[in-house]
Amino acid sequence: MGSPVITLLTDFGLSDTYVGQVKGAILAVAPGATLVDLTHAVPPQDVRGGAFALWSAVDPFPAGTIHLAVVDPGVGTARRALAIRCGRGDLLVGPDNGLLVPAAAKLGGIAAAAELADPAYRRPSVSSTFHGRDLFGPAAGHLASGVPPERMGPLVADVNRPFAFPVPVRRGSALEGEVLHVDVYGTLVSNVPSSAAPPSFTIEIAGRSVDGPSPHFEAVAEGELLALPGSAGLIEIAVRNGSAASSLGARAGEPLRVRPR
Amino acid sequence: MGSPVITLLTDFGLSDTYVGQVKGAILAVAPGATLVDLTHAVPPQDVRGGAFALWSAVDPFPAGTIHLAVVDPGVGTARRALAIRCGRGDLLVGPDNGLLVPAAAKLGGIAAAAELADPAYRRPSVSSTFHGRDLFGPAAGHLASGVPPERMGPLVADVNRPFAFPVPVRRGSALEGEVLHVDVYGTLVSNVPSSAAPPSFTIEIAGRSVDGPSPHFEAVAEGELLALPGSAGLIEIAVRNGSAASSLGARAGEPLRVRPR
Amino acid sequence: MGSPVITLLTDFGLSDTYVGQVKGAILAVAPGATLVDLTHAVPPQDVRGGAFALWSAVDPFPAGTIHLAVVDPGVGTARRALAIRCGRGDLLVGPDNGLLVPAAAKLGGIAAAAELADPAYRRPSVSSTFHGRDLFGPAAGHLASGVPPERMGPLVADVNRPFAFPVPVRRGSALEGEVLHVDVYGTLVSNVPSSAAPPSFTIEIAGRSVDGPSPHFEAVAEGELLALPGSAGLIEIAVRNGSAASSLGARAGEPLRVRPR
Repeated sequence: MGSPVITLLTDFGLSDTYVGQVKGAILAVAPGATLVDLTHAVPPQDVRGGAFALWSAVDPFPAGTIHLAVVDPGVGTARRALAIRCGRGDLLVGPDNGLLVPAAAKLGGIAAAAELADPAYRRPSVSSTFHGRDLFGPAAGHLASGVPPERMGPLVADVNRPFAFPVPVRRGSALEGEVLHVDVYGTLVSNVPSSAAPPSFTIEIAGRSVDGPSPHFEAVAEGELLALPGSAGLIEIAVRNGSAASSLGARAGEPLRVRPR
Repeated sequence: MGSPVITLLTDFGLSDTYVGQVKGAILAVAPGATLVDLTHAVPPQDVRGGAFALWSAVDPFPAGTIHLAVVDPGVGTARRALAIRCGRGDLLVGPDNGLLVPAAAKLGGIAAAAELADPAYRRPSVSSTFHGRDLFGPAAGHLASGVPPERMGPLVADVNRPFAFPVPVRRGSALEGEVLHVDVYGTLVSNVPSSAAPPSFTIEIAGRSVDGPSPHFEAVAEGELLALPGSAGLIEIAVRNGSAASSLGARAGEPLRVRPR
Repeated sequence: MGSPVITLLTDFGLSDTYVGQVKGAILAVAPGATLVDLTHAVPPQDVRGGAFALWSAVDPFPAGTIHLAVVDPGVGTARRALAIRCGRGDLLVGPDNGLLVPAAAKLGGIAAAAELADPAYRRPSVSSTFHGRDLFGPAAGHLASGVPPERMGPLVADVNRPFAFPVPVRRGSALEGEVLHVDVYGTLVSNVPSSAAPPSFTIEIAGRSVDGPSPHFEAVAEGELLALPGSAGLIEIAVRNGSAASSLGARAGEPLRVRPR
């Protein structure tokens, strides 16, 4: 048996010691926890980008993992702090600003959500600017130690859902969607599930047509565009050993159309 | 019970494998240690910047944590290598160049300091350029395994204190201080303790006046300046969803004045 | 006793959640594993650069460590996936593209290599673009749990060796070599082993002559060039508190000559 796994996703970056301080606060409560960074490079205050990153990352973790996510422009205001138990048994901790909602949906939906109201599960003194360390980190530690969300505060029936990822629209035999995310390689991650795409398809994007699916990157020549089912279960447009974002001048929000060929 | 926690703070960056090698050397000695990165983005050779980062990060960790810090322009010279036991029980490992001193003061002061002189607690062969791996890492591992600093070499009574953080000066009802650190968001961390500031105050900095304390970032409009008690116990000047460093053209050393309003 | 150590080296960067997802897949198999990042900043698709980084980093880790390395432009093609047991007992996991070969040589040579062919040691569904998560990560987890490489697939006698690091050539009393790697400080790591260099030497590089070995960085003035035995067992050319790469306009491949003085 291993120790409970706690993942961390923030917009804190790695230049300052903020992420380390959150980990210190977790380990002060749950000394045996296994800590895993998902990413700390969410653009500052980009709740929606953070929500996508969290949604795309939770699947491979063992059931029962605790995911701590902090992208929190409203820190210190009356916005609620949440602990959520998902259908699959995983636990989510973070602000009630929509950040956790897509990941919860992927992990079996919200089985229970509680507001982190009980001061027993915080640091003795809570700053107005660093709830990652003073409130969310300790809460994650207590969850890892077996405290159920329900004991940390009142149940929340109306978790905030201020946004949703756009869903592709069927128009005749085609699906009209958009780019959800551009990754570090410049690969464009669309909102079209691989399972919804025709067996053979053409993607129209930024004035170009790309046939798919390619079985792998080396199916095209260096520098050529390709389309293939991506690792998050969504169709991706890439360039072999290059950047589709640069080649196409495309970014998140760019419209696209997937039609059978 | 968890395993001993060892934190790491260096100027090694994350592009090379240097940090990984230090961790390998630690785990070769203390296989069950829990390793936490504080930051590896200290500007190269910036002992003072590293000392501030370490000072600001140690507080949330459980007592008994081992903090390994390496910003060490004098590596390979006769400068001493130290293990320090602090009043609170935490242990510090690093070069005797002032890097550890502010953190030690925060953790209850230096209870004992020893020079890492005994070759039994080093790697068999010590390079002249990488004491993080060959000397400090193994020492941290042995501390985690229960070896006391005193067994690693002679006691050091005269730990080097080549610098101190500037302390604000009282002038009438005002405190004159300066910016100690600019964080990744461009927030200016002053040297004025929140506990020393008047209940309501105005900060004069770079020709501007900023009223405080704001309860949180959303107390002002997007792009506006605010001042509030920061997470390190010091007054900070920030811009909501922006950078105070850019807005004010200010950096570390910028003078400021806090007066009652 | 500690948990098994698994290191990770990739070209995934830290902006996306890819490294975190690999860790999730490992922990789903081996919940008690200790995970250590070597680096994730290998330039995209740079198999040779990744091989150097891995080679230079494995030495300090305890025998029996599992090193997972993914720089894999051929992901999804017929290129083989490997688990290698080294002479010293360490295990390597990664693509059969040369990435693992220098590290294996340093760790006592290849004692056994197996193709990761048995689907029992993969995630249930394997994507065509993310074998780090779907194939290599789970294999590393099973190795950590005690499954021997031989049980994961057929033995491989002809591990690919598509490149080798250049070896210095003796010309009279001099050694002619080149720069293998430039580190984050701009220090030039040559391919000349410290053990092969004369006790006192002059290095000719980029039209300059540098005497060595210096005992440490402070043996020369700020901004001056120096040469010294580096932490990877190779002669390095550095600038005190500066960058030799910038000073000399040199990068990987730059020729150099080491002669006695």
